[in-house]
Amino acid sequence: MKKQFIVIGLGRFGSSLTKTLVEAGHEVLAVDKDIDLVQGMSSIATHAIQADATDESVLKELGAGNFSHAVVAIGENLQSSILTTLLLKEMNIPKVTVKAKNIIYGKVLTKIGADQVVYPERDMGIRLGRQLSSDNLIDYIELSPIYNLVEMNAPAAMNGYSIYDLDVRAKYGVNIMAIKSNGEINISPRAEDKIQTGDTLLLIGSNEDISALERKYE
Amino acid sequence: MKKQFIVIGLGRFGSSLTKTLVEAGHEVLAVDKDIDLVQGMSSIATHAIQADATDESVLKELGAGNFSHAVVAIGENLQSSILTTLLLKEMNIPKVTVKAKNIIYGKVLTKIGADQVVYPERDMGIRLGRQLSSDNLIDYIELSPIYNLVEMNAPAAMNGYSIYDLDVRAKYGVNIMAIKSNGEINISPRAEDKIQTGDTLLLIGSNEDISALERKYE
Amino acid sequence: MKKQFIVIGLGRFGSSLTKTLVEAGHEVLAVDKDIDLVQGMSSIATHAIQADATDESVLKELGAGNFSHAVVAIGENLQSSILTTLLLKEMNIPKVTVKAKNIIYGKVLTKIGADQVVYPERDMGIRLGRQLSSDNLIDYIELSPIYNLVEMNAPAAMNGYSIYDLDVRAKYGVNIMAIKSNGEINISPRAEDKIQTGDTLLLIGSNEDISALERKYE
Amino acid sequence: MKKQFIVIGLGRFGSSLTKTLVEAGHEVLAVDKDIDLVQGMSSIATHAIQADATDESVLKELGAGNFSHAVVAIGENLQSSILTTLLLKEMNIPKVTVKAKNIIYGKVLTKIGADQVVYPERDMGIRLGRQLSSDNLIDYIELSPIYNLVEMNAPAAMNGYSIYDLDVRAKYGVNIMAIKSNGEINISPRAEDKIQTGDTLLLIGSNEDISALERKYE
Amino acid sequence: MKKQFIVIGLGRFGSSLTKTLVEAGHEVLAVDKDIDLVQGMSSIATHAIQADATDESVLKELGAGNFSHAVVAIGENLQSSILTTLLLKEMNIPKVTVKAKNIIYGKVLTKIGADQVVYPERDMGIRLGRQLSSDNLIDYIELSPIYNLVEMNAPAAMNGYSIYDLDVRAKYGVNIMAIKSNGEINISPRAEDKIQTGDTLLLIGSNEDISALERKYE
Amino acid sequence: MKKQFIVIGLGRFGSSLTKTLVEAGHEVLAVDKDIDLVQGMSSIATHAIQADATDESVLKELGAGNFSHAVVAIGENLQSSILTTLLLKEMNIPKVTVKAKNIIYGKVLTKIGADQVVYPERDMGIRLGRQLSSDNLIDYIELSPIYNLVEMNAPAAMNGYSIYDLDVRAKYGVNIMAIKSNGEINISPRAEDKIQTGDTLLLIGSNEDISALERKYE
Amino acid sequence: MKKQFIVIGLGRFGSSLTKTLVEAGHEVLAVDKDIDLVQGMSSIATHAIQADATDESVLKELGAGNFSHAVVAIGENLQSSILTTLLLKEMNIPKVTVKAKNIIYGKVLTKIGADQVVYPERDMGIRLGRQLSSDNLIDYIELSPIYNLVEMNAPAAMNGYSIYDLDVRAKYGVNIMAIKSNGEINISPRAEDKIQTGDTLLLIGSNEDISALERKYE
Amino acid sequence: MKKQFIVIGLGRFGSSLTKTLVEAGHEVLAVDKDIDLVQGMSSIATHAIQADATDESVLKELGAGNFSHAVVAIGENLQSSILTTLLLKEMNIPKVTVKAKNIIYGKVLTKIGADQVVYPERDMGIRLGRQLSSDNLIDYIELSPIYNLVEMNAPAAMNGYSIYDLDVRAKYGVNIMAIKSNGEINISPRAEDKIQTGDTLLLIGSNEDISALERKYE
Repeated sequence: MKKQFIVIGLGRFGSSLTKTLVEAGHEVLAVDKDIDLVQGMSSIATHAIQADATDESVLKELGAGNFSHAVVAIGENLQSSILTTLLLKEMNIPKVTVKAKNIIYGKVLTKIGADQVVYPERDMGIRLGRQLSSDNLIDYIELSPIYNLVEMNAPAAMNGYSIYDLDVRAKYGVNIMAIKSNGEINISPRAEDKIQTGDTLLLIGSNEDISALERKYE
Repeated sequence: MKKQFIVIGLGRFGSSLTKTLVEAGHEVLAVDKDIDLVQGMSSIATHAIQADATDESVLKELGAGNFSHAVVAIGENLQSSILTTLLLKEMNIPKVTVKAKNIIYGKVLTKIGADQVVYPERDMGIRLGRQLSSDNLIDYIELSPIYNLVEMNAPAAMNGYSIYDLDVRAKYGVNIMAIKSNGEINISPRAEDKIQTGDTLLLIGSNEDISALERKYE
Repeated sequence: MKKQFIVIGLGRFGSSLTKTLVEAGHEVLAVDKDIDLVQGMSSIATHAIQADATDESVLKELGAGNFSHAVVAIGENLQSSILTTLLLKEMNIPKVTVKAKNIIYGKVLTKIGADQVVYPERDMGIRLGRQLSSDNLIDYIELSPIYNLVEMNAPAAMNGYSIYDLDVRAKYGVNIMAIKSNGEINISPRAEDKIQTGDTLLLIGSNEDISALERKYE
Repeated sequence: MKKQFIVIGLGRFGSSLTKTLVEAGHEVLAVDKDIDLVQGMSSIATHAIQADATDESVLKELGAGNFSHAVVAIGENLQSSILTTLLLKEMNIPKVTVKAKNIIYGKVLTKIGADQVVYPERDMGIRLGRQLSSDNLIDYIELSPIYNLVEMNAPAAMNGYSIYDLDVRAKYGVNIMAIKSNGEINISPRAEDKIQTGDTLLLIGSNEDISALERKYE
Repeated sequence: MKKQFIVIGLGRFGSSLTKTLVEAGHEVLAVDKDIDLVQGMSSIATHAIQADATDESVLKELGAGNFSHAVVAIGENLQSSILTTLLLKEMNIPKVTVKAKNIIYGKVLTKIGADQVVYPERDMGIRLGRQLSSDNLIDYIELSPIYNLVEMNAPAAMNGYSIYDLDVRAKYGVNIMAIKSNGEINISPRAEDKIQTGDTLLLIGSNEDISALERKYE
Repeated sequence: MKKQFIVIGLGRFGSSLTKTLVEAGHEVLAVDKDIDLVQGMSSIATHAIQADATDESVLKELGAGNFSHAVVAIGENLQSSILTTLLLKEMNIPKVTVKAKNIIYGKVLTKIGADQVVYPERDMGIRLGRQLSSDNLIDYIELSPIYNLVEMNAPAAMNGYSIYDLDVRAKYGVNIMAIKSNGEINISPRAEDKIQTGDTLLLIGSNEDISALERKYE
Repeated sequence: MKKQFIVIGLGRFGSSLTKTLVEAGHEVLAVDKDIDLVQGMSSIATHAIQADATDESVLKELGAGNFSHAVVAIGENLQSSILTTLLLKEMNIPKVTVKAKNIIYGKVLTKIGADQVVYPERDMGIRLGRQLSSDNLIDYIELSPIYNLVEMNAPAAMNGYSIYDLDVRAKYGVNIMAIKSNGEINISPRAEDKIQTGDTLLLIGSNEDISALERKYE
Repeated sequence: MKKQFIVIGLGRFGSSLTKTLVEAGHEVLAVDKDIDLVQGMSSIATHAIQADATDESVLKELGAGNFSHAVVAIGENLQSSILTTLLLKEMNIPKVTVKAKNIIYGKVLTKIGADQVVYPERDMGIRLGRQLSSDNLIDYIELSPIYNLVEMNAPAAMNGYSIYDLDVRAKYGVNIMAIKSNGEINISPRAEDKIQTGDTLLLIGSNEDISALERKYE
């Protein structure tokens, strides 16, 4: 379903968000006070307008109340984030997502009515931290505070062994969900399938068990 | 294996990265010119030092050359990022990861010797864009430019149907890898297993096929 | 009953408030970031401390949670007002009164948890406006949106007439509650009491009726 | 009688004053150097003009000398307040009211010819201080340095008692002038009238006596 | 008679004034906010102190009230000049001389209590203008708006003529009061005294007559 | 003789100089970079032009080389004073007078070619210093480092005495050159002429002798 | 051969470079962000354009890729130098010369692709240092780290001696290549040619030998 | 002969100059207001001192008058250059060399007493311009406005030819003074000596003739 987004704040985060939404087929009205940033988005966003989103009459002229989702991606300025969020919620936009600098600002924004608060720099710090922590980790999904689904490079020490040989389920409590080998994704790997250097593994397991596995095959 | 990181730049990204690395059991020397940021990290990082990392003699005093991995998380200032990266590479640190503002800065940093360039705000914009694009998407791993592994809320319209009933593999070319139901993760779902509102699904498929599936059950 | 106030922000409004509270017998901890303002209050407030009230740990050190009433009199800076208010409410202070610049800021502060929002400059503008609107008005209490109790100089044209002569109750629907004459306050004026130039009248009536009366005797 | 005001300085105080004067039926020429503030008043004031009131020729063009009353509501800048006040008095405006920051500035303005000096922030600090000092006080008029007329919430402990029962005149030297009950104002309460929680009382008495009464029924 | 001066403001004007007063045998307390200016006066003034003269308590500590004459030589800042002047007059200093930027500021300072207002830059502009207006004028004293006493170089065309020959009294209504010749001042020149190139004349006459004389002998 | 002046720098000194020169019948081209200052001179100077006098081509367009006298009255900026003076002298203006801040700047300007250097603030400081040093001194002309011609109020103690009685020439070596009495100037006072309170005396004598005389009659 | 240069940065270095290139018959497009600097070059450069050379699209519009040689003479700003250099190299300009502030910046610029890095201020410091080090040195060419060709004033002590007499080749290992005498250059001096005060010598020798020679004839 | 230099201003030019002078065996007192620049010179200059050279008493304390040569290498600030130069010349330093920004500043400095004025950035622009103008030019000495001694790469087209073959003296009026081949300098090349690619030639000739030669062999 095509949605109508209004994205306020077109810095690196807001502009990258806008581009992704448009590529996913949605309509996006991109708004910023800085005309240079607006022009940079003019060929990407559905509409790009230079405007001050802390001014209620401006938001009304933009028809902000008709959007199904607003994203307030204003960077450092808590005051502007707050006023914009408040005004947008008063215009009855169903969902307002707001970027926050830290937890305390996030708390304020939630009280003011923000439906969702995001912390991009903090989250990317965590994500990069996890990747750098391991030599093999490529990406991951946190399924629960304990269980992760991880995409990792097959450790060199696994080279030539079959799933049966490795028996990681029994030894480490970790399941191999899929193996990507030469660009092909094998989503139901069998016991006799062999792992080769250069393969990518999709594993599910507790953080602890996956770490133990990784240390073992280091 | 415990690694030695030096993280330069302790803004939101750098501090969150530092915290994650320490929690993963690594040693981190956290460095910034701003004493307030350094103090904020003093109880988190292994060591936190106020220093100017664009000064070669300072980096030598810090023993920067002995670290196995450096992360230059200096924000806006290309000049400082460049000088620091250059100096670190001249000290033969095996891996230097640098945060960049945009592609052109990334190009400069790569030429100067950066082993890895990251764009946290841009990447989080993409990630949030994908999540907001769908009503159900929670997280995803890009397995290839075409195939994704996605974690999504089970669409309401699937409620009560078994995997057999839905037959998403035949109809949409999408595989259900796992079902999270009431906190339990079922990693080898059987044909007769039923999906219920509130369940979380792990699917593998092409972006297009997953989108088609989602639209169908909207 | 003696109360414990913490007043944050010692500008003209905050310092005058502090002085009034102390004179009324209460204890006041006066706080500001500006050491000059703190020193100016040191001989007036029970305690005066230079501190940054947007810092949670600082507020805890001040024991802010033990006060029965906090007043946030920070001037222009919405961000500081908000953070301080949020922190104070999280410390469970029963009543937090906050000075706001305008209605929209007031709305934000209320959402954040402020128990009372005041607008001193706006209110004094209204008050002075009312006084200047009339040649005789000295002060007033708004009993309801329609009825006022007003203190006014007796119009010259009333000089020498008795209450009976003037018969303002019948003619204008206005009651003369008291007459101040030569420093004496006559709180139950009788029909034969005469009004003299220099007297002050206390009247109750609708705004309209009092205006009509004033115009008549202009 | 409709008066002609010129209000110079359209900050929160000046704009609120302008609005009150216009609502009371007077004509107001609103003047500020800041075009944004002028525009904000354009639909409220009789006329709103962007001009520098420290320039004599500008004041002459505005016909400032024809106004019966000028209010100089310039905020912080003593120099501008002084020059404007001086120029206005030289143009023979009968009454010039000036907002001052503190007593010493007030003294200067008086010497320069100001007919009335007001201290809005200080006065509102006092007013709020008095209200916060008591749990019941709503508003008050200072009849003399000793006697006040106060509007207060009837203390809970008075609930159900008649004026005769309470006998506050004899016991505390305080007169009950009026009782507001359910929106009705009873301006000549009789001995048998009973007070109920939620009623508002209008009392006249010395500050001390009213405080004693309030403490008693706390 | 030795006097006690306090000079506030030690710029070029104030410092040159201080030096002159001290050389004339008076005591001078030299005050400025700028420590560099104070140090520059330390070997010249009787006492030189770094202090803020707009602060009443500071002036009291300096014992400003005991001086017979104060000079406020603060440059551009009207506000500081005013506050200082007001405070000094409240301390009952018999004479306060204040430097002003222009006539309107002078008016304000007079109203505030300044006993004498001086305009050094304007006056020196006039003085230099008069000197440049004539090829011979050296200096002058304005005896009245019409009559001047002027010191001028004897015009070349007078060379060799006696006072009798020139007969300037009859021809131009101008009196030669004295002739300075080779460093000797002849204060009662006789008719037969001859004027020579290089002599200096002291003349009394109306501006017009002296100009006429000068033009004649040009 | 009418002269052509170019005055560069229209601050208080330059504008007052311009006015005096024009009043004396000369032509003045008034120049400043600041358009406001130029406009303030437009009705006073013969011509007033906004221009940057440190730019050679600008000076040529103004025909600066045709003026008989230039005055550089630029305030604080040594660099601009120097460049302008240099350019003017290279255009062969016969006389260039330059305002300087202090002696060292004066030295530089002289080396650069300035024909005359003036120090208005310093000179007025001296002049005011001399006047304040004496209770009677009104004005003076320095005839030599030792001899002065002074205009002074007749000391009260001289009231009623004749010149013969006072015999100041014999007693103090001071000559009474003229007496101004009731607006009349008596330029050859006789021995029997009496001095009265309110008279003004013109005296010639050494500084020391005049001081001695003044102290005597104090 | 006429070349096409683009010179970016028109400060003192860049403008002097541009002038020299044009005088040598080359075409130069002169570019700067500062319109004043561009105008100063408009009558000197082949073309002079105000533009921001850190913007890729701007460089393309200027057709920067068609030039055979680019000089980046941007002063202090490393970031601008880098971005411009990178963009120019990506446009395949064969030779890019860049001015650098110091060696470390030079290293960065080389890595980014600069073909030549120059250090004008440092080099001129060295050049002047060498000239001031000797009383006779006029100019020199560094033939190798050891050998120099120097142009020097003939030392006074050589006056009247022939090359044979002096025998500097044997005594000091220094060759006299040419003698400039009265404007004539003798490029093959013979043994009997005499040296006279005022002559200029061209010598080749090691730095040490030339110094020894100079000391000898000092 | 060892000389005593005082170098004022330790930017890139001044510091490089200082280094060169010290390396040539002279004593250098290096002075700057900026402590960082001073520290950077502390291990290079004979003495390095943080001081304000526009202050006469400071220069005296440094014993500036005892140096045989001063270099004023202050960058942009004409005022400081002038004052320093003036003071140094008043201290009778025999030679004062001053860096100037442009010709007009140079003129001022000469009038103020500078013995030598240098323009490093302009000169390096010229020098680089000449080198870039030719594909072969390495360095040059201007022997006269017409004749140059140039060091150039032997053009490829000369490869294998002897001096006799080339006959550049007859054909172009250019003399080959020396040939550097494989690091050896042949200072009296004979007719049969052959030129090879990679050789460096030292030529003397008029600019025109050398250009013609170069074009021929291009």
